[in-house]
Amino acid sequence: MRTSIATVCLSGTLVDKLHAITDAGFDDVEIFEPDLIAAPQSPEEIRALCERLGLGIALYQPFRDAEGVVEHEFARVLQRAEAKFQLMDRLGVDTMLVCSNVATATIDDDDVSADQLARLAERADAHGKRIAFEALAWGRYIDDYRRAWSIVERADHPALGVCLDSFHILSLGHDPAAIERIPGDKIFFVQLADAPILSMDVLSWSRHHRLFPGEGGFDLPAFVAHALRAGYAGPLSLEVFNDVFRQTDPARTALHAARSLTVLQDALDVGRLASDSDRHSDSSSEPLELDQVELKAPDTDEVAALLERIGFAPRGRHVSKSAWLYAAGEARLVLNEHNVSIAEPRIAGFGLRYAEPHGAASRAERLGARRAHRRVLSGEADLPAILSPDGTEILLSGPDSGIRWPEEFTGGRGAPDPGILGIDHINLTEPVADIEEAVLFYSTALGLTRESAAELAGPTGLVRSQVLRSRAGGVRLALNVVPPLSEQRPAARRHAQHVAIACVDLPSLLTRARARGLRTVPVSENYYDDLAARLDLPDEELVRLRSAGLLYDRDEAGEYLHCYTETVGTVFFELVERRDGYDGFGAANTPVRLTAQHAAA
Amino acid sequence: MRTSIATVCLSGTLVDKLHAITDAGFDDVEIFEPDLIAAPQSPEEIRALCERLGLGIALYQPFRDAEGVVEHEFARVLQRAEAKFQLMDRLGVDTMLVCSNVATATIDDDDVSADQLARLAERADAHGKRIAFEALAWGRYIDDYRRAWSIVERADHPALGVCLDSFHILSLGHDPAAIERIPGDKIFFVQLADAPILSMDVLSWSRHHRLFPGEGGFDLPAFVAHALRAGYAGPLSLEVFNDVFRQTDPARTALHAARSLTVLQDALDVGRLASDSDRHSDSSSEPLELDQVELKAPDTDEVAALLERIGFAPRGRHVSKSAWLYAAGEARLVLNEHNVSIAEPRIAGFGLRYAEPHGAASRAERLGARRAHRRVLSGEADLPAILSPDGTEILLSGPDSGIRWPEEFTGGRGAPDPGILGIDHINLTEPVADIEEAVLFYSTALGLTRESAAELAGPTGLVRSQVLRSRAGGVRLALNVVPPLSEQRPAARRHAQHVAIACVDLPSLLTRARARGLRTVPVSENYYDDLAARLDLPDEELVRLRSAGLLYDRDEAGEYLHCYTETVGTVFFELVERRDGYDGFGAANTPVRLTAQHAAA
Repeated sequence: MRTSIATVCLSGTLVDKLHAITDAGFDDVEIFEPDLIAAPQSPEEIRALCERLGLGIALYQPFRDAEGVVEHEFARVLQRAEAKFQLMDRLGVDTMLVCSNVATATIDDDDVSADQLARLAERADAHGKRIAFEALAWGRYIDDYRRAWSIVERADHPALGVCLDSFHILSLGHDPAAIERIPGDKIFFVQLADAPILSMDVLSWSRHHRLFPGEGGFDLPAFVAHALRAGYAGPLSLEVFNDVFRQTDPARTALHAARSLTVLQDALDVGRLASDSDRHSDSSSEPLELDQVELKAPDTDEVAALLERIGFAPRGRHVSKSAWLYAAGEARLVLNEHNVSIAEPRIAGFGLRYAEPHGAASRAERLGARRAHRRVLSGEADLPAILSPDGTEILLSGPDSGIRWPEEFTGGRGAPDPGILGIDHINLTEPVADIEEAVLFYSTALGLTRESAAELAGPTGLVRSQVLRSRAGGVRLALNVVPPLSEQRPAARRHAQHVAIACVDLPSLLTRARARGLRTVPVSENYYDDLAARLDLPDEELVRLRSAGLLYDRDEAGEYLHCYTETVGTVFFELVERRDGYDGFGAANTPVRLTAQHAAA
Repeated sequence: MRTSIATVCLSGTLVDKLHAITDAGFDDVEIFEPDLIAAPQSPEEIRALCERLGLGIALYQPFRDAEGVVEHEFARVLQRAEAKFQLMDRLGVDTMLVCSNVATATIDDDDVSADQLARLAERADAHGKRIAFEALAWGRYIDDYRRAWSIVERADHPALGVCLDSFHILSLGHDPAAIERIPGDKIFFVQLADAPILSMDVLSWSRHHRLFPGEGGFDLPAFVAHALRAGYAGPLSLEVFNDVFRQTDPARTALHAARSLTVLQDALDVGRLASDSDRHSDSSSEPLELDQVELKAPDTDEVAALLERIGFAPRGRHVSKSAWLYAAGEARLVLNEHNVSIAEPRIAGFGLRYAEPHGAASRAERLGARRAHRRVLSGEADLPAILSPDGTEILLSGPDSGIRWPEEFTGGRGAPDPGILGIDHINLTEPVADIEEAVLFYSTALGLTRESAAELAGPTGLVRSQVLRSRAGGVRLALNVVPPLSEQRPAARRHAQHVAIACVDLPSLLTRARARGLRTVPVSENYYDDLAARLDLPDEELVRLRSAGLLYDRDEAGEYLHCYTETVGTVFFELVERRDGYDGFGAANTPVRLTAQHAAA
């Protein structure tokens, strides 16, 4: 199927947008009228540019307030439309979107609407054009695609069909199954937008909060499948009004948009449309385990000291790079000082193990991930690596190769603390402009499954946190969105990235680690007083937590003990002990942690 | 009445917040429990700090999920409460907020709730504490303050009263008049929050979008008046959950909050509670006219050239400052090069005429405006000046003095173009973090009236625009909010400030101005094609607009012709002609203007 996107999805001028859309690989474009009106280029220039770029103009939109009006008003509608048909001739586009009347309709009568739309279609036909009629969710009388179709059916004109927009249909909870009762050749156009499930007026929801497919709560593969079963053969076109995408780089947004359509088409191809959780990943595309985390800086001495205090031991220096491996249990942290331009230590990448790492890398590339270049010398493991949208390097290893690469580090010394089991999760930060793209990347190109997002109160704003994980549970990744207005404030540095280390008997480990010089972020006494009031904890347990300086959480299954180290650069570590299948991340304690870090900043 | 604010309104640590609250002049504070829990200070330290600062702790909040539960659950409630009463002893606070049960209530029976709240109050009483019970708008069973009161009345315990929160009452559209039926001594606490009128779920609305009084759509003076008539004598306390205020400087937010309470108290004092439009200004506190606009930069040559091309003539250089006055009709623009650290020309201030400028300045100062220092030499007009929150200097002149100060500029040459009438409006830009504070400042300290806000699509994001004006119409001010994520992009500079010049026969003026070398922002041909399709304009009028390069708008009353000059620094000029009482700002044309400016950037 051809892919398409509306110019309104992107920021910039019309010419900027057309280039970005072409570069992202779309076949077609919907021209959003205000973009053309504001453009200095003539319609002929835009047409010629699209021809040179190989971009089809699939739709001109929107034409408003056409039907359900009194006759003298309708004469004006035909006059307006005549001017637009001439414009479409100049632009070289066949189909015009007419959306159901919001402002001027006074006649709630399907016969009148059908008659007027038929006459409009007749005029269109005379220009070799056709009309795609769409029910807006806030149309004055017509807000349901089934009614729009019944009017189009009644009008019975070859140049009149319907446009189906997933947002208008799914936002009102209308069942999309009836799409299959519309003849495919009467579905003139399909527009796709996802959206978070929000409870707000549908107009604001639509104008500000639409998302690309796979990023919200709508089941778009099922929606599109209905249109395909009806016989629709036109383009799949994205129409996403979003406050953030309006402000961000159009080239990047267009790539991001294209990736969402590829994922959607994959889901359609494999025919697994039944449930949301099946959509993005199957067991073969899902990572098995977190292999390692890589921190980069010109000087990683402070991180090395911190890791040794926690209980890591150096496994050696890399044979050909300025990189050191610190390990304990299944936790492996690479400190990379090779060719680094980053001033302060940060998480520069991580490794994931897949059953078929080369297959996983190809899949990620097809979904728009860039391949990362790695220098590999003779005898070293040549692992595929890809880049996340923000440049984090993800190294893909197999069940075997994941065990071989540590052998490239030589000269190890000492034994790690046996209390360390592995890496529990990684927590990365994303600016608000990048979060949707990052979530889409990790949930599709990397095969992780998105969980619902939480919002946590910190001293400089609310932190939105999105968890992604492998369904088998081996990989857990949290993405935190920094409050955007606080980014300029010094304390925002403390909205740092972190790596959580899984431990056994954390209180004992902490005693040993503190003897090695580890300092953890202090927990307020008030926290323990509140814990005592809130939970039925045995007194001796409370005393243990308090004396160990541990935070505590529990869910139906089990318990979670955790604490945080000081921050080095923009990285800190969390030490965690999960008991009896606790499945969360201690989110209730985040405000306490953020406040303590804020005070220490 | 005592003034109070909840710590949750501000960003930072608890100690930061207490200092900011004191510095802003509040009498009392509500301690929001999570702030205390996260604080490293003991309750005794917080108490001692508040004592030193002279800040009363008026409320400890919130205690959740108390009533309507099964008995064994209620035993846990009493245990939890006991711990909190002990904490309140340490903190030295008498009143605890209990909000209606959201999570654990299973019994929808007022007798059960009354009985349980009475027993809770009995325990509180034993500690010398009291309980203020509040109906949350999303309480499971109790979401109406009238029902909360009827339960409190039924419980009939001296240590049990109600807390009235304006948000929970007004957001659900409940009539606040019934507040007057509650005995004043049973209203233990009043919490105030304003909010924009939004159609979304009330929980999200409450948690993210509350505003300080006077900034939203609630009639808070009427609300408070009901409580006062009931005999309430406790503090007026602000409880505002707002995503922006959580991120911004607490000292500034606290001042802003204090200003909103002063305005509210003024409104109560004068007893003009009837209508929203009467609330903030009367004719004596309202500005009569815009006197002048001042642009500052070390070098204003380019602005001077632009003004002369438009048709301004130099009225002279200031006798004691490096400042030049350009005038035409009633439009006066001061170009100030005196002692300037701003790199590029920008709007640094403006002058307003008041019937009593010194009275207006005192009033603004009492509402938190800082006084601006002006160097004045012998014989020069000594006008009072105040600073807006973002540092814009506002010079207040009287009906007479407004005519005298231009005499301080000498050496004028030439005659201005007679087509220029005066200044139509000023358009300033505000970052999103500052807009609420700016709107409150201009609508209260300066006596302007706030109109509804509009949202305009630009090529790098949606621009929110808030118009303020004097009711007599002499002063028009628009505040535009720059899309925050685009601030870093170069094109954001084009979201510049501007001064609109009112003209008569704009097409002729433009012919003369272009002969003087003026260049205006080009308007796309597509714009005129669309104008022709949209409006029934006579062809010759369309030709005139097109050949003059003018944008066009109309409303019920009249028409608006306008165009824009190039940008110098961050300032440009709009030339406007209002015909027959047109009352808008040509907002429909803003996307065309922004796109043209974006392309020129």
